[in-house]
Amino acid sequence: MGIGIVGGGIAALHLALALQKEQIDAVVYTARGHGDLPDGPLLNTVVHHNPTIARDEFLGTDRWPADRYGYRRHFHRIGGSAPVEFTGVFRRPSSAVDHRLYLPALAETFLDRGGQIRTAAVGARDLSRLASQHELVVIASGRGPLSGLFDRRASLSPIHAPQRRICAGLYTGIDRRIEDGVGISLAPDVGELLEIPIITRHGRVTALLFENLPGAEAAALSDIRPTEDGGCRFARAVLDLLRDQHPMTFERVDESDFGLTDPRDLLQGGVIPAFREDYFEIEDGVFALALGDAHVVVDPIMGLGANIAAYSAGVVADCIIDSGGIFDELFCDQVARARAEVLIGASQWTNLMLQQHPRVSDVMRAAARKPMLANVFTDNFDHPERQWRILATDRRAERFIAAGPEPEPAPPAT
Amino acid sequence: MGIGIVGGGIAALHLALALQKEQIDAVVYTARGHGDLPDGPLLNTVVHHNPTIARDEFLGTDRWPADRYGYRRHFHRIGGSAPVEFTGVFRRPSSAVDHRLYLPALAETFLDRGGQIRTAAVGARDLSRLASQHELVVIASGRGPLSGLFDRRASLSPIHAPQRRICAGLYTGIDRRIEDGVGISLAPDVGELLEIPIITRHGRVTALLFENLPGAEAAALSDIRPTEDGGCRFARAVLDLLRDQHPMTFERVDESDFGLTDPRDLLQGGVIPAFREDYFEIEDGVFALALGDAHVVVDPIMGLGANIAAYSAGVVADCIIDSGGIFDELFCDQVARARAEVLIGASQWTNLMLQQHPRVSDVMRAAARKPMLANVFTDNFDHPERQWRILATDRRAERFIAAGPEPEPAPPAT
Repeated sequence: MGIGIVGGGIAALHLALALQKEQIDAVVYTARGHGDLPDGPLLNTVVHHNPTIARDEFLGTDRWPADRYGYRRHFHRIGGSAPVEFTGVFRRPSSAVDHRLYLPALAETFLDRGGQIRTAAVGARDLSRLASQHELVVIASGRGPLSGLFDRRASLSPIHAPQRRICAGLYTGIDRRIEDGVGISLAPDVGELLEIPIITRHGRVTALLFENLPGAEAAALSDIRPTEDGGCRFARAVLDLLRDQHPMTFERVDESDFGLTDPRDLLQGGVIPAFREDYFEIEDGVFALALGDAHVVVDPIMGLGANIAAYSAGVVADCIIDSGGIFDELFCDQVARARAEVLIGASQWTNLMLQQHPRVSDVMRAAARKPMLANVFTDNFDHPERQWRILATDRRAERFIAAGPEPEPAPPAT
Repeated sequence: MGIGIVGGGIAALHLALALQKEQIDAVVYTARGHGDLPDGPLLNTVVHHNPTIARDEFLGTDRWPADRYGYRRHFHRIGGSAPVEFTGVFRRPSSAVDHRLYLPALAETFLDRGGQIRTAAVGARDLSRLASQHELVVIASGRGPLSGLFDRRASLSPIHAPQRRICAGLYTGIDRRIEDGVGISLAPDVGELLEIPIITRHGRVTALLFENLPGAEAAALSDIRPTEDGGCRFARAVLDLLRDQHPMTFERVDESDFGLTDPRDLLQGGVIPAFREDYFEIEDGVFALALGDAHVVVDPIMGLGANIAAYSAGVVADCIIDSGGIFDELFCDQVARARAEVLIGASQWTNLMLQQHPRVSDVMRAAARKPMLANVFTDNFDHPERQWRILATDRRAERFIAAGPEPEPAPPAT
C-alpha cells in the first residue's frame, strides 16, 4: 500500500525522499526515466530559493551546496523612458542547478536509499488501479495526460491564455559578475529577461529566460529554430533584443563567444497559469491529492514554480508523517489549509507581474531609492506570501514605499 | 487610529496586551468595568491549557504561575453498565484561575503599561463610529448585542439549540487529590461532570461543571435557585447527582462541609455552538474582525472556549504586527487561513462530545487499557486540531485505538 506519487519532478522526488526518511512506503511513477534527462532538452531554468535549498539540506540531497554554488543578489532594472537599476541582497543564498542534473541526482539518492521508481506513463484511466494499490495517490505531474486532472479554481485562476512567449536557454559569452546573482530586467510593453547563473553539464553558464509579451516584436524569438543558419539567426536575434531592451546583461556580452551552449539547451513555449482544486476522491475513500504543477501552475517570470512545488511537497510530507496513516477528506483539507497562504501569495504575485502592473513598477522604483526596500523585495522571493502582501493593492504598495527613511541626497560634487 | 477592540474577556485583553508589547495603538471597549467583576456572578469555569499559559508567560501576565498553581493530570471516567477510569498526563501544566480574578489582573496590567480601556456598551449602531476612529475593529464580545453580528457558517454550525443544561459552580467540601488535576466524568444519557481545581478569592476550591442532557432528570439542577431553602435543596440535588452518576468525585466529598462557596459562585444556563464568518467590511475599507466568542462559540464541555479565544488572539496579534498597518480583506483572509485548522478542530471535537458519540467512548475505553493513548488523549487538550484528527471518523478512531502495544495482562494473584 503506502503512497503512490505520480511525477518525476522536484515535487514528486522531494515528497518521496521526505517520506523515505520516515520509513513511509512510497512508490514514484514517472513517464520518463531520470537517466534520459541529461541528454534531453532543457526542462526549465528554475532557481532554488533558500527554503528549497533548506529542504535539500534537510533531506540530505544538497549535492551542490549553496554556500559554494549559490548567490545572494538580485540585480533589477526597469527600462523605458526613465530607467532605474538597483541591487537587492538576500539574507540566505539561492542557487540554480540545471534540473537535468538535479532531478537525476535526487532520483539516484532516492533509489540508493532503497526507494522505488517505476517508469510508466500514468493516465486518468490508471487512477483506479493506483487507488487499489495505494492509500493515497499524489499527482505531481505537470505535463502529460494528468496535468488538467484537478478542476481550476475560478476565483484564483483569472488567466486563460499564455501571457508570455517564453524563450529559455543556456548561453556562453556572458561575463559573470564577481558578486554573482540573478538579473531581472523589465522592459515595458516588451517583456522581461531573467539572467541566471546556473550550474550545468557545461559548468557554470548563463541562463537567459526571455518572457516576451505575445504582441511584442521580441516574441518572435520563440519561433526561431536554434539550428537555423548554423544558429546564427537565433544568436543575432537574442543579441539584438539584449542590446535594445536589456543593457544590464548586454554590457557583459562577449559577442565573439556568444551563443547557445547547445541546440538542446533551449526551451520555447508558453504557460497558462492555473490554481487547481487540492484533491478529489478517486474511489472507495482513496483520494488523489494535487501537488506541484498539477496543483498550481505559475508563469516562470518570478522563478517560483519549483520553489512552491518543493514547499508544497514539504507540507504534504509533514501532513502524511503526522497523519497516523489516514488519508481521508479531513487529511486533504488539512493539507489544503496548511499550504494555501504561500501558494495563493506566489500565484497572485506572479499574475500581477504578468500584467506589468504600474504598482510593481512603483514599488521597484522606490526600492531603487531605498536599499532597505530593495533587500526586502529581494528577500521576499523566499517568502512569496509576504511579497503579495506588499503588492496586492495600491494602498499596500504605497505603505511599503513610504516605509523607512528617504536616503540622504548625494553630497554635491566638489 | 490604531485598533479598536470590543470586549473585555481573555481574547480582547490578550490581543490588547500583545499589541501593546509592540507599541501598536489599541483601545479596548468593554461594557462592564473590570473592577466590578470580582464581586459579580461566576463568569465561567474555564481552565487554561498550556498554550494559553504560554501566551501569558509571553505577555508577562502569568500572575499565577502554572508550576505552582497548575496541574498535569486528567482523571477520566465513563459510567454506565461497564464503567472504566483512567488517568492521562499532560506534558505541560494546565491551570484554572477564576476569571473574576484573572481578567481584572490582565486589565490592570494593560492599564499599568499605559493601555486604554473605555467602559461603554457597544452595539451595532456604534460600529460606524468605531470604523471612523480605528483602522480595524476587532469584535471579541461573546455576550450582548454584538454576539450575533457575524453570520454563522452553516457547514460548521450544525447545532441550533443548547445541547446541555449547564450548572457551573464553586464548592467547598471536596477533598483535593495529592496529585491534582481535572476530572472528566461521562454519564451516558445523563451528562458530564468536569471537576476542576480552581484558584478563586476563596483560595483553591473545586469547580463543578455539570453538563446535563436537556432530557435527563439531572437537568433540573439548572432550575434550582442556590438560595432556596438556605441552599440546602441545591446542595442536596448536587450530592444526589454526584452519588448517582459521578462517583469519582463523590468519593472525595465531605458531606458535612459540602456546598457552594457563595450563591454568586454559580452559573446556570446553556450555549448554542456557532462557527461564524471571520470578518465583514463595516464601511470605507474598515473591517470588523471576529475574535473569541464573537467568532466561535463552543459548549464548555471540553473547556476549550477561553483557550481557542486566546489562541485566536495570538494569531490576530501576530498578523497585525506583521501587517505593515494594512487591514484590508487580504489581511482578514490571512487571519482566517492562519487560525482555521485549530478553531475547526476545537469546534468539531466539542460538537462530537455533545453527541456522546460511541466513537468517543471507544477511544476512551482504549485509553483506559493503554496509558500511552491516555496521555495522548489528555495532551491533545493542548492541541484540539490533533484530537479532532483522532476522533473525526470511525476509521481514524480505530487507527488510534490500534496504536501501540496492548498492555501485558496482570500477573495471576499468588
